[in-house]
This record gives sequence, structure tokens and C-alpha cells, in this order.
Amino acid sequence: MVGNSLSVNKLGLKVAQKLIEYHKEYNVKVASGPSGSTIIDAGIEAKGGIDAGILVAEATMGGLGRIKVGFRDYDGLALPTIIVYTDHPVIACMASQYAGWRIKTKDYFAMGSGPARALALKPKKLFQEIGYKDEHDEALIVLEAEKYPTEEAIKLIAEKCGVKPQNVTVIITPTQSIAGSVQISARIVETGIHKLHTIGFHLNRFIAGQGEAPIAPPHPDPTVAMGRTNDMILYGGVATYFVNAEDSEIVEYLKKAPSCTSRDYGKPFYEAFKEAGFDFYKIDPNLFAPAMYVVFNVKTGSTFKAGYINAEVLKRSVSFQEVK
Amino acid sequence: MVGNSLSVNKLGLKVAQKLIEYHKEYNVKVASGPSGSTIIDAGIEAKGGIDAGILVAEATMGGLGRIKVGFRDYDGLALPTIIVYTDHPVIACMASQYAGWRIKTKDYFAMGSGPARALALKPKKLFQEIGYKDEHDEALIVLEAEKYPTEEAIKLIAEKCGVKPQNVTVIITPTQSIAGSVQISARIVETGIHKLHTIGFHLNRFIAGQGEAPIAPPHPDPTVAMGRTNDMILYGGVATYFVNAEDSEIVEYLKKAPSCTSRDYGKPFYEAFKEAGFDFYKIDPNLFAPAMYVVFNVKTGSTFKAGYINAEVLKRSVSFQEVK
Amino acid sequence: MVGNSLSVNKLGLKVAQKLIEYHKEYNVKVASGPSGSTIIDAGIEAKGGIDAGILVAEATMGGLGRIKVGFRDYDGLALPTIIVYTDHPVIACMASQYAGWRIKTKDYFAMGSGPARALALKPKKLFQEIGYKDEHDEALIVLEAEKYPTEEAIKLIAEKCGVKPQNVTVIITPTQSIAGSVQISARIVETGIHKLHTIGFHLNRFIAGQGEAPIAPPHPDPTVAMGRTNDMILYGGVATYFVNAEDSEIVEYLKKAPSCTSRDYGKPFYEAFKEAGFDFYKIDPNLFAPAMYVVFNVKTGSTFKAGYINAEVLKRSVSFQEVK
Repeated sequence: MVGNSLSVNKLGLKVAQKLIEYHKEYNVKVASGPSGSTIIDAGIEAKGGIDAGILVAEATMGGLGRIKVGFRDYDGLALPTIIVYTDHPVIACMASQYAGWRIKTKDYFAMGSGPARALALKPKKLFQEIGYKDEHDEALIVLEAEKYPTEEAIKLIAEKCGVKPQNVTVIITPTQSIAGSVQISARIVETGIHKLHTIGFHLNRFIAGQGEAPIAPPHPDPTVAMGRTNDMILYGGVATYFVNAEDSEIVEYLKKAPSCTSRDYGKPFYEAFKEAGFDFYKIDPNLFAPAMYVVFNVKTGSTFKAGYINAEVLKRSVSFQEVK
Repeated sequence: MVGNSLSVNKLGLKVAQKLIEYHKEYNVKVASGPSGSTIIDAGIEAKGGIDAGILVAEATMGGLGRIKVGFRDYDGLALPTIIVYTDHPVIACMASQYAGWRIKTKDYFAMGSGPARALALKPKKLFQEIGYKDEHDEALIVLEAEKYPTEEAIKLIAEKCGVKPQNVTVIITPTQSIAGSVQISARIVETGIHKLHTIGFHLNRFIAGQGEAPIAPPHPDPTVAMGRTNDMILYGGVATYFVNAEDSEIVEYLKKAPSCTSRDYGKPFYEAFKEAGFDFYKIDPNLFAPAMYVVFNVKTGSTFKAGYINAEVLKRSVSFQEVK
Repeated sequence: MVGNSLSVNKLGLKVAQKLIEYHKEYNVKVASGPSGSTIIDAGIEAKGGIDAGILVAEATMGGLGRIKVGFRDYDGLALPTIIVYTDHPVIACMASQYAGWRIKTKDYFAMGSGPARALALKPKKLFQEIGYKDEHDEALIVLEAEKYPTEEAIKLIAEKCGVKPQNVTVIITPTQSIAGSVQISARIVETGIHKLHTIGFHLNRFIAGQGEAPIAPPHPDPTVAMGRTNDMILYGGVATYFVNAEDSEIVEYLKKAPSCTSRDYGKPFYEAFKEAGFDFYKIDPNLFAPAMYVVFNVKTGSTFKAGYINAEVLKRSVSFQEVK
């Protein structure tokens, strides 16, 4: 696999180092964590911001994604957007960015994403399929959480990664922070790969990916905030991929890929979640996908599109009103 | 206040240093000014350009804003735009970028903006409200002017900033230069804060800002050129803010905020200015605002929009004609 | 001429150095070429990608252009785009980026572009008009090819550039690679200057240029791939220029400038090429131009537009189909 010899932890830590060095400009707080670990707080005690969110997202992709701020009009509502692309879609998104590691100890819980997953090989089955593992002696993990990790949590991370606790760097962004919103919208390319992979499309088809999604305006209620960050992807996200596959295979999977193919599509995520009694297991997993896919097949030269942007639901999601 | 320990002069001079080091690439002229000061000419004897304008704008924001070139279609007229954002909106925009210092000596006059204001505390009342002052021993000032500053002007700047004249760096961009157009359009976020602040909205509400405005095509007549640079903001500028306030307060102020709420709205600025006998005091100060505001309230999660882009006036402003 | 003392080879090699240093991240292969030359393969044995294409394009412009990835909706088809601008339009585009050197030996053929042309002065007549030549002792050439250059080809390049063969660096991108697509779309500003120049507009009129064009989805057939890369410019490209000229002169030339003024306009390039029996000499040379021009005349302040984006032909060009 091309890129096998790249270390997502080494490259991601280069990005994290910028957050540490310019912590004042980025509004982040750098703290000593348990057992000599390093904590980069991008939204709990620190204010964080758009720029911190961009670096957090680039670090989460193991330094293998490029992220910029854009701007797009959604039927009269202008929203800042995140534009992201990667030439290492499987490693950057699936082996690193995907929030696939449940960090769970007696005293702590958070979903973990970022390069450390490629040391701990979480989840194992996915890494077998990817065929990539990192071998760096430092680990970088990104936690979408509202609390700093405990000593037990750090020890768990270190142990599973096979590194010393003092070589663990943790970036934390709460869902309802600006940096949190930014780094989640930057998952548009990852979300699109994840959905296609879940329904059976092979990871080795992906050559490059590019996407755009609006940045979710933060909401004080963590559940509503989480719903919004989903909505930006589900109703506003466009993911484009360069793939190498059969046209028939692409058509078959794209029919089931965009969010609009889900039975729970059509309302802000928070509303669907509420109707499901706030029970994640009652939400159709097929919902978690970009609003629109555009796929370029380099094998045949065909271009496919599925799904569409839904400005109406986006407006409801962000509690939009026009002042006159 | 977060960011209090950041020095806008130190950070702005880091940006200015790039203009100096790569002056040929940026088409700027670096000259020795009076009393050992340094002059960076980005449009008088030097040609300047888009890229110089971007660095000038970033320097004017004390290194705390990020600026990119974009592209947007205004009802059939494609215009290059400036996309700017900052996670330090009050310091970057109000304590630095705002052109709030009248540099006036017997032999020189120019409006001064940029980090030096945060040393000289100009205007004083505004800085008391901001609660920020810089303490660097070097000063960076940006002059929108057509002549190099005189020795008296440099001495005045140095004295008010409390630095040695040889530690003063001056960037000059005339209004009708490309770099001038770029750095003015990059004021979209600042203009929106300034207007809201003028009508009574508290500065401490602002968390982050992002905006977009087209770049004004230069005009050989300085007054027309100035009018155009205003029009890009007044009729084409979109400013978005993350704020922390009451929804009712936001609605109250947004009703009076966008340019369309002014009695002088609806025609290119030059025309209004001409009708007013070229007397600035006869122009409604409420006119100076972005065409559109989008405000995200992190306190409640509400999203508000006021105003709109006016492509028709933009086209008239730039003397647009289609060739067939 | 402003910029005369800039070395496009020196600046372009600074960009190429990034490709060499971070070759794994950029998916490029760095190889020793004949006679001690250096080969940077961005799409033959290496995978390349979007990011490699951006650096290749910046290197091709002699380090004097800035290139970003954007995103644009073409009547329902979202395509990644390239946004490029330069404040040195004539040197960056005509003295460097333009593919104006036929590298031909008994055993090799490729069209050459990039900084080396400004050492070899190819074509000579154009360089006399530009009034610029480089004098660096290293040469950087970019080849749109599917094979590595032979020893004879390297010796030819070295000899014509007046440098030692071991001081020749070659970047290669095949037309049907992603990096190839990117670097061709980044020629939007160059293509627009070239067309205007071909029909008689003076090069010394250009002050700055900015443009946007979609990235062509690669096609396995090199001829179809080549057609598509043309279509992105001809049907999707917007080129904007700051010029200094008479309004009447601009109007006169813009009437003949955009691609839609050609008799061969209106269908994907491949179709026109096929109808012409795949004979380039039967294709109207006037076709090779941006879809849309926007020109800002700094002498008078007038703004002109000619041509339009043609989403329908773009969709046909990329074999677009919607999956439902």
C-alpha cells in the first residue's frame, strides 16, 4: 500500500506541535496531564476557535489532510464551511480520523480518534482490512470530551499504543466548542468513506477524497450541539472521491450511500434522536452519510452523483431566523 | 481577556518581515524612512498586488487574522474575493485593524491603522473599552496614503507609541492600488464589529468572526476608488460572527446593522458622496456596514441573518459591462 | 520590467524541493535520472494526487503563483476546483508555465513547460517580447509525459539551458493522472493570456491575474483525458485580469477571446477532435481559451466580462450521471 511507511503519529504530532508553540494565537491551553502526558485543551478551559479547529482536524488526520475555511450560500443563509482533501484517504480517514476507539475506564469515557488508533489498532478488524499500522514511539489521540482524561485513561491509552505515558499527547475538543464544530465538519470525507465501507464497498477502491461541509454553530446543550454537527454532514456535506472500481459497483453502492436514502432522513438529527427516545440504537445507521456524493471513476472515466444538499433542514438545524 | 499577553506589534512584524524578505516576489519596495524607520511601499513606487495585499492585511490585523483569496459569482459577474477569519475579533479588528488614528503633522496626513494603535492607544476611549494594550518596543503602522511619511510624521508615531523612531515600520498602500483594494476588503469583519459597536452592541460579546467581500477593481480617480472599496463591503460583504449574548439583544441591534438600514443605501458610494457635495459629514454614518450579517449565538444556539448582497449596485460600482 | 531580477528556476526549485523532501506525503517518486539529473515522478510509477498537483503547478509557475483547492457547483454537479492567482502574470505564465518547448530527440518526445524555458528561451520570439530571461545555474522543467526522459533528452535540456545535466530537475505528470489534471486546470490564467496574446493583445498590459477551473476527472484513455483537461478550461474556466489598456482595445479583443467565439465551440473537446480525424491542425486554435473572462482596467476603472460557464458541456465531458 502506498504510504505504508508514513507515520500518522509522527506527522500528526508535527501539527500538534504548532498548537503547542503558538498556543496563545490558537487560544488553546497546554497542560501537563497524568503520568507526564501532554494535554492540549482546545475548548474546555481554553476558548479555542476556528483556527484551532483546523489544526486539530489536520492532526486528527495524521497530518495527511489539508483543511481550509470556505464560504457557501445555502439558499440565502451564508455559512462558513470547511474544505478538506486528502491523497491518503484510507490512512488519513479510516486509520486515523475515524472515531473508532472507545476509551473507557472506571472513571472516564470518551470516543477516541486520531493517529493513536493506528498504534492500538482500534478496531482491530478494520485495521486488518486497511493493512496499515504505525510504529511510532509517541501517540497522539483526539478526544471529543468535556473533561480531561484521568490517570487511568492515560495509562490505558499508553498501554494499548505500546508507548510510555509521558509520550502520550491528548487533544480535547468538546462537541459544543467552535474547534469541535470545525473538526467534526472536517470529517466529511471520512464519513463518506465510512458509510460506503459499512455497506460493503472496498476500502482499496479509494484514491483521493475532497469534501466540503458547513461549520455547525455551537449550541449550549451538548445533545443539540451533537445533532447539529451531524446535520452539517447529513444535510450540507458534499464528499467527492477519486476511485478505481467498476461503474456497476459504484452505482450499486451509491444508490444506498447518501443520507437521503435513510428512513430517518428529513429532519434535524436532534428531532429524530428525540423521537427515538434518545436511544442511539434506534437511529438508522444508514443516516450517517454525506448529503451528496460525487464519485470520479479513474478506471472508466465516469462521474457519478447521488444525493443533494438540503438547505431547508440545515436552516431548521441551526435555528435560523431572518431579522428585518 | 483571552489574548491579553499577545503582542500585535510583534506578531504583525513577523508578517511584515515576509514582505521585506521576499520583496521581489511581493512586488513591494523596502526603503529607509526618516529617522531610521523602515518603509514598506506596497503600491506607490512599487507595483504591489494581490499577494502583497494579503500580507498587508494580515499585518494590519496584528498577525491574528487569516486571509485567503476566493471567488464568487455576483449575478453573472465573477469577482475575486477575500475570505478572512479571526479567533481574536476584538484585538485583531478593533485594537489593530480599524483605521482609528489620524496621523497629522504640519506636513503630512494619513489615516493610520494596524498594531501601532495598540501602543499609542488611539483612540483612547476605545482602548479603555477593549481593555488591551500592547507593550512591544517596536511599532508597526499601516497607512492608506499616496506619499511616504515625513520625518515629523515618523517622530510623532514613535513618540505616541513610546518606541524609538528606528523601531517604527510603516506599510503604505494607496486606495487605488491592488494591495489597497485587497487590504480594505479584508476589513469586512472589522467593519461589521465597528458598526455594531457604534450603535451600542458590547465588544465583549464577540468570540470569532469570519467574512467575505469582493476585491474592488482599482480606479484611477482616488475618490472613485475609495467609493468602490466601500461598495465591496456595503453591497458585497458578508460578515459572520460567533457571539455570546441574549437573542433579543442580537435582534435589536441587527435590525439597525446592515448597510441597507441606512438612508443613503442603494447607490454606489461615489454617487451618494457626490450628491452630498463630497462632504463626509453629510453621509449617514450608519451606511458603513457589511451588506449581510450572519450571527451565531453560542449562548442560545440561535442563528440570525440580516441584510443581503446587492449585485446590481456592485455592478454599477465597478462600471461593469458585458462584451458580446 | 518589474520582477526581472527574479529567478523562476531558483524559486521553482524551492517548491520542487518540498516535493522531494516530503515525497511520501505527496505520493511522488524521486529518482536519479540520466547523467545525474533528478526526476520527480508525480503520476507514472508514483500515485501522485491533488496535493502533488498543486506543488507541480506552483513549480511550473516558477514559484510566482499561488494555488488552492476550491469547490463549485456547476448546475447540480459539485466539482473540486483550482483557484490560482499571480502578481507576475507574464513571467509566471508566459515565461514559465506555458507549454512552449517541444523536447524532441530521436528517442523521446514531450511538451516542456516550466522555468527551464526561461533559460533556453523557448520559443525565442516570445521571450524577446516578454523581455525576461533567467540566469540560474540549475534548470527545472515540467513534462506532461508518460515516460521518463532519456539521456539524450536530458542532455538536450541541459545544453539548451546552459546548465550541467546533473543540475537538471524534471517533474513528470501524465495527462491522465490526478496531479496532471490539477496542474492543467491551474493553467487557466495562462490560457487566457495566451489566447489574448495570440490574437494581438500586448503582454505588457497584464498586471495581475486570478482564475478558477474545475479539476478534470482522469480518464484511462490519454486522448479522452487530454480532451477533458481542455474542457475544464474551455467550458468551466474563469480568468480574471487586472490590466492597463484602453477600454476600446479591451472590448475589441474580448469579443474574440473566450472559447465560445470559436467555430469548434459547443461540444466536449474529444468529440470535436474525433470529428477532425484526430488532427490537431484541423481544430480552430481560437477554441483554446477560458470559458469566461473578467477584465479590470486600472487605467479607466472599467470592468468587462465576456463568455460564460457551460455546465451542460462540462457534464457531458466528464460522463456525468446521477444515481437515484
